[in-house]
Amino acid sequence: MEYVTGVEKKETIEISGLLAGDFAGKKVKVNGAVHTVRDMGDVAFVILRKREGLLQCVFEKGKTDFDFKEIREAQTIEAVGIVKTEERAPDGIEIRLESIRVLSEPAAQMPFAVSKWKLQTTLETNLDNRAIALRNIRERAKFRIQEGIARGFRDFLYGEGFTEIHTPKIGARSAEGGANLFRLDYFHRPAVLQQSPQFYKQMMAGVFDRVFETAPVFRAEKHNTKRHLNEYTSLDFEMSYIDGFRDIMAMETGFLQYMKKLLEQEYAKELRLCNVTLPDTEKIPVVRFDKAKQMVAEKYDRAIRNPYDLEPEEETLIGRYFKEECGADFVFVTHYPSKKRPFYAMDDPDDATYTLSFDLLYHGMEITTGGQRIHDYGQLTKKMAQRGMTTEGMEQYLAIFRHGMPPHGGLGIGLERLTMKLIGEDNVRETTLFPRDLSRLTP
Amino acid sequence: MEYVTGVEKKETIEISGLLAGDFAGKKVKVNGAVHTVRDMGDVAFVILRKREGLLQCVFEKGKTDFDFKEIREAQTIEAVGIVKTEERAPDGIEIRLESIRVLSEPAAQMPFAVSKWKLQTTLETNLDNRAIALRNIRERAKFRIQEGIARGFRDFLYGEGFTEIHTPKIGARSAEGGANLFRLDYFHRPAVLQQSPQFYKQMMAGVFDRVFETAPVFRAEKHNTKRHLNEYTSLDFEMSYIDGFRDIMAMETGFLQYMKKLLEQEYAKELRLCNVTLPDTEKIPVVRFDKAKQMVAEKYDRAIRNPYDLEPEEETLIGRYFKEECGADFVFVTHYPSKKRPFYAMDDPDDATYTLSFDLLYHGMEITTGGQRIHDYGQLTKKMAQRGMTTEGMEQYLAIFRHGMPPHGGLGIGLERLTMKLIGEDNVRETTLFPRDLSRLTP
Repeated sequence: MEYVTGVEKKETIEISGLLAGDFAGKKVKVNGAVHTVRDMGDVAFVILRKREGLLQCVFEKGKTDFDFKEIREAQTIEAVGIVKTEERAPDGIEIRLESIRVLSEPAAQMPFAVSKWKLQTTLETNLDNRAIALRNIRERAKFRIQEGIARGFRDFLYGEGFTEIHTPKIGARSAEGGANLFRLDYFHRPAVLQQSPQFYKQMMAGVFDRVFETAPVFRAEKHNTKRHLNEYTSLDFEMSYIDGFRDIMAMETGFLQYMKKLLEQEYAKELRLCNVTLPDTEKIPVVRFDKAKQMVAEKYDRAIRNPYDLEPEEETLIGRYFKEECGADFVFVTHYPSKKRPFYAMDDPDDATYTLSFDLLYHGMEITTGGQRIHDYGQLTKKMAQRGMTTEGMEQYLAIFRHGMPPHGGLGIGLERLTMKLIGEDNVRETTLFPRDLSRLTP
Repeated sequence: MEYVTGVEKKETIEISGLLAGDFAGKKVKVNGAVHTVRDMGDVAFVILRKREGLLQCVFEKGKTDFDFKEIREAQTIEAVGIVKTEERAPDGIEIRLESIRVLSEPAAQMPFAVSKWKLQTTLETNLDNRAIALRNIRERAKFRIQEGIARGFRDFLYGEGFTEIHTPKIGARSAEGGANLFRLDYFHRPAVLQQSPQFYKQMMAGVFDRVFETAPVFRAEKHNTKRHLNEYTSLDFEMSYIDGFRDIMAMETGFLQYMKKLLEQEYAKELRLCNVTLPDTEKIPVVRFDKAKQMVAEKYDRAIRNPYDLEPEEETLIGRYFKEECGADFVFVTHYPSKKRPFYAMDDPDDATYTLSFDLLYHGMEITTGGQRIHDYGQLTKKMAQRGMTTEGMEQYLAIFRHGMPPHGGLGIGLERLTMKLIGEDNVRETTLFPRDLSRLTP
């Protein structure tokens, strides 16, 4: 009988392995994609692209058992050679080649120079050729940082007693949904794609007390801006037994602090590649919506046009205000007007015009919406009736309140947008692996 | 200026906190949902449902500052009392109540007894009332175990140098898709929901070498069986620079070993609640598809009807065979016939009738499909042509091979199905939070 017993040790060594041991002068076997070749005559530099970075290999005429012509860009190869320390090489090491084995050949050379430090293409070309463009070291580093953000979100929340949930993305049309839903045919029944796991995470907050989900959401909004996507990854959590919505903001701050530490520890290379300065997460200022509007109107001499919502320009100015006044990268804006928040938002008992809710702005852009939810069945159904909503199709959602729900609240963070702000990009498509927008459905 | 500085310490204490310190005789504040109340006359037991389990509180007449009538099931409360060790109570502790504060009131009592050890409902009733049914301690424990599986998958793969990716679920219709795609209108363009992240993870295996995704997939299959869902969570990975498809099986075995350890360490309570015996993951037998067919045909005296596919009954018998012959819980069945595998599967160079692919069976049910993929552009386009496939709409997928791809392969694991087999359920809906099937689109 033949068995598989687990991960088997390979002869080939990765960059972290080379850096962990004392390999100088020793013979090793490595593999990778030929990222670029620089022919200097008697010597050539063959740079391998590996998952942990670039590895410099050196071809010296007469010192190898193969001909230089056998190597070309976009091959993948296995190479044997001697490790040398070389401070001008990436990570301070290089491999003096002895022999190679070609693992695969390209059928054509790259459509553009992915080995350049900065990709010299337009965003359109980049996105049209996404799978190739991401072979650029700096481009791919963005998504390693994105991994760190999502990973930090989960790891932090596991530690805080949250349970991960997986809720369905296809659902029946419900009372909440507006025009912004993608519709589909589900075995001859009308169905929609969920624009948020909101109802499900509330349902599960009655089961596990604290839940989170990291999953796609779908918005059929006809926006064509630098910060909107029609499909994105939402980092959602919901927590019960809160004393107020401040608990939600405190949990988000805790996540941002944890994320920052994780990125510093595990993604330092990628942070350097993307030239990222991590934000200050020590303390995040909190300001009321109406107060914030007034503050920026006064400081920047700007008329308030819409008292019920923040215009993007106002968000930018609030970000600027708090950067200037107290060096803050983030600001919690609280107490959004009730008429601009969904029916399930808890109204402020002191003034029902406002809700116990918040947005988190990062350098003047909204990256989170959250708040306390109504947990009382009577209060919830009353508010729905006041808004002229039907309860049809919402029976299961309402059942959790009928049968008792603890005080609770939560939030949603747009992963791509948070990545964008962290890296300092100005278009969310830059930090989306395969963006979906009004005009883009492929690749 | 007001600030939020991170997670704030609460006055209330959780079960793990009570168990970690020496609280006997001390006054504590706790909160939870009133799971059940047993009135014994002068004494009553008030069992609180908390995220970490049940907590027994004791009401003794004359010892509290509130009346017993103030407590009823399905409330959520905050309670103050004295901790006593009590070996008959869950976790060996109870709280002698002094005072309570009601946090929320239900509008109606439970539709069925969620506080029973085993939920006394049909699966249909359970699923129709999912958000309430999961308040049953044993029901919810299944999804804590499910969390452990997904968490183990990610944590193991991070450690093995994989990068997490988030690929779009809405896409243009491609050549691969068959009848099993959900279709939708994407701003007046025809679109589909992805049935697998296959192409995307291959594209990203050319970028990050090793990638994984844990995300929903959508299958418009008209199956109505105990093991099919129309939407499920797929644990996918893809890895480059493999020596062969055995590397994929080795990585999966490593994951299962890691998962088992994580469950034992962090989910012991839930494993006990669900009465789970964890499978043997030390060594997993490997058998060729044609050999396995023949073995069970001989041992169980069964005619081979379809030489190209495994019938569910054959899968069951293969599971039984390896359990009987070598005590194995898992079996890798390898070398599936080429005609039953997708075009991108690598054919066996020794016999192109078969592929370098495998399924993993767990107690006789397929929980994984995986294998090596073709990485050579010429070989891939030739196989597509032989199958009469068009390359239209697949340009970006094919571009990765044109511009060089390393040898690679990967797999997909159905999270709900793996959970089902691990817990020993016989219907995948039991281990799906909100199942989607032919007849079920809500809740």
